[in-house]
Amino acid sequence: MREVAIIGVGIIPFGRRDEDSLMDMLAYASLKALDDAGLGEAERPVDAVYVGNMGSGIIQHQTAIASSLVDRLSLLPAAAETVENGPASGGSAVKNGLLAVASGYYDTVLVVGGEKMREVTGWRATDFVATMTHPQSEYPYGITLPGLAGMFTRLYMEKYGVTREHLVYVALKNQAMGTLNPYAHVEMALSREGIFESPHAIVNNPPIADPLHLYDACPVSDGAAALVLCPLEMLKKVNKLPVVIAGFGQATDTHTLQEREDPTDLKAVTLAARQAFERAKLKPSDIHVAELHDAFTILEIAESEHIGFFKKGEGGKAVAAGKTSLGGQIPINMSGGLKARGHPVGATGVAQIVDIVFQLRHELSKERQVKNAKNGLTINFGGFGNNVLVFILRRVES
Amino acid sequence: MREVAIIGVGIIPFGRRDEDSLMDMLAYASLKALDDAGLGEAERPVDAVYVGNMGSGIIQHQTAIASSLVDRLSLLPAAAETVENGPASGGSAVKNGLLAVASGYYDTVLVVGGEKMREVTGWRATDFVATMTHPQSEYPYGITLPGLAGMFTRLYMEKYGVTREHLVYVALKNQAMGTLNPYAHVEMALSREGIFESPHAIVNNPPIADPLHLYDACPVSDGAAALVLCPLEMLKKVNKLPVVIAGFGQATDTHTLQEREDPTDLKAVTLAARQAFERAKLKPSDIHVAELHDAFTILEIAESEHIGFFKKGEGGKAVAAGKTSLGGQIPINMSGGLKARGHPVGATGVAQIVDIVFQLRHELSKERQVKNAKNGLTINFGGFGNNVLVFILRRVES
Repeated sequence: MREVAIIGVGIIPFGRRDEDSLMDMLAYASLKALDDAGLGEAERPVDAVYVGNMGSGIIQHQTAIASSLVDRLSLLPAAAETVENGPASGGSAVKNGLLAVASGYYDTVLVVGGEKMREVTGWRATDFVATMTHPQSEYPYGITLPGLAGMFTRLYMEKYGVTREHLVYVALKNQAMGTLNPYAHVEMALSREGIFESPHAIVNNPPIADPLHLYDACPVSDGAAALVLCPLEMLKKVNKLPVVIAGFGQATDTHTLQEREDPTDLKAVTLAARQAFERAKLKPSDIHVAELHDAFTILEIAESEHIGFFKKGEGGKAVAAGKTSLGGQIPINMSGGLKARGHPVGATGVAQIVDIVFQLRHELSKERQVKNAKNGLTINFGGFGNNVLVFILRRVES
Repeated sequence: MREVAIIGVGIIPFGRRDEDSLMDMLAYASLKALDDAGLGEAERPVDAVYVGNMGSGIIQHQTAIASSLVDRLSLLPAAAETVENGPASGGSAVKNGLLAVASGYYDTVLVVGGEKMREVTGWRATDFVATMTHPQSEYPYGITLPGLAGMFTRLYMEKYGVTREHLVYVALKNQAMGTLNPYAHVEMALSREGIFESPHAIVNNPPIADPLHLYDACPVSDGAAALVLCPLEMLKKVNKLPVVIAGFGQATDTHTLQEREDPTDLKAVTLAARQAFERAKLKPSDIHVAELHDAFTILEIAESEHIGFFKKGEGGKAVAAGKTSLGGQIPINMSGGLKARGHPVGATGVAQIVDIVFQLRHELSKERQVKNAKNGLTINFGGFGNNVLVFILRRVES
């Protein structure tokens, strides 16, 4: 199998993008990635396209969007399809782009993830996300993703001593980083007082699924992000230092949380991480920067433990102690994470990798850049941990 | 890249399956394929699962079905995702399963395609299929797939002399073959008199999109089909002669028919076929049996020309002369095709390959079996020819 490099990345500002269609957003991010790869003017820039998207059928009443995108971008007759894996659709698209290049069948592959979620608002947005729950044993009973996350948080608190204050530290860190990221949805920094300590905190930051409060959850966002992949051996036209996908892992777990022997045990994260570390021939302490799937603050803490950055029960304290902040032991979500960049579901897995590529190329402003970062990691968490992808990226020194 | 073998196939009867959910159908076909591969009792039968499906979000209001299926089949922690490419979703799922094995990342891969379309009936079924049309320049104007096919047929008739009688020959052949296929939706044979010659033919077989009549179109069906893939070099537990995927091709064309320089020229079919033949090191005359994408009778004729079985303008006459019947020059759609087996969109690309595997293993009844068939071909046609996959399969003699 061929080693696969990321030679271009593109991302558009996440948030409310009322004036752009889903197709517009996918096209903008793709063109940025192609330009970044130096392929913007090439006659046949890519052989294949993978689109990560979860909801175009439900939200936009549109299918076959990959065919439409290839035409819109004048990439005909490139192969194209959409990959769907709930909120890990982006990660699954990247995986299949990676396999396509690794297999030797395709040389240059565009992967783009996008979602236009704000066309559905209020309960409809929550309902859209809930289409990933189990159609017999979850959805008909009204469980939602915030509901599952709330129950998971309660169990995790009881078993591992995570506190609400630990969750607040995650929210404060990520939202502060989001204000420094020009692509983030959320532009407002939070204060500890405003969301936790003051008498008005309960008004500013009300419970949404006890013990989770409003600022424990990511916003509903529109957005898109893209990558261009090619075999490492074929690098010629690249202006920038390439980053390689050193390893990936993917694992599934029971579709419902209730069927897990220990619902606090995110087995799919552990297994996917193990595969990724084995393939990359690296260990958790070799990672310099990570983008974890903090759709809810508790997930950043739980994932940081399951991936092996911290022991079980230490993740919350680590955030509070600044170990996951810039300059700390392992900076996590220096993009702001899903919490502040936003979580347009099909885009997230791609956007995480885009931000790690920025880090590994040392291109960010010093407020976000992890010094000398060489190895980075992402976790894209599908369902409630029922389908998880982990990627490990490595900077290639010339 | 590793050569990839198909070591197991499974298909369930297509048609009205009101008592089965989409998940039930995917599971039944998958279990049949796993059993056929001799992996039904294996502890870790597959490493990865690809689900071909177009409409679960729209029709079933359900996403992340691949995660749900893996759990249902007790295949955890296998990797899994859904691949969507309109009516070529099945073919795209097979392609990605193939690349996954060819890449060396996964050894045993289950590919299953399925669709439960009869939950939407009447105009809603036509509308569901129309979600693959262009969201700005087609869908809002009310064009449907039968409408596009009707216009294409008129142009093809004018340019190449195809007649309604030629179309009737396709319908008669395929529906007759369908009555011999236990997995086909349509169980009734048609008569030339009943649908074409008698004074009542206009009642039995009314126009649906002139010049196409009712029996020129495939039915709306429920169904599922599955394959198990592994590297040819790893064959051990296989009871049956394996079939290898000798080549595949995929190409896209303009999303809308109207933008093509010559709308009768199905460029994506020509290009995808060229790639497949090059990879397989075969030519059209080496193929012994083919499953073409006859969602409308005209497509079987047009594809048989574009793929190189017949010259342009000869396809219609070839059908009339019996050249595409059993015992003819190149038997086409000995399963009954989409026309008679049915066209549950996500299932079709997989079902075509399943039937070719039956042919290449020489397992069919003598009324359907092409004698000594060694090489077979499928065309899975997405959109109106905007995303086409071609597979060439070869029987491996021991």
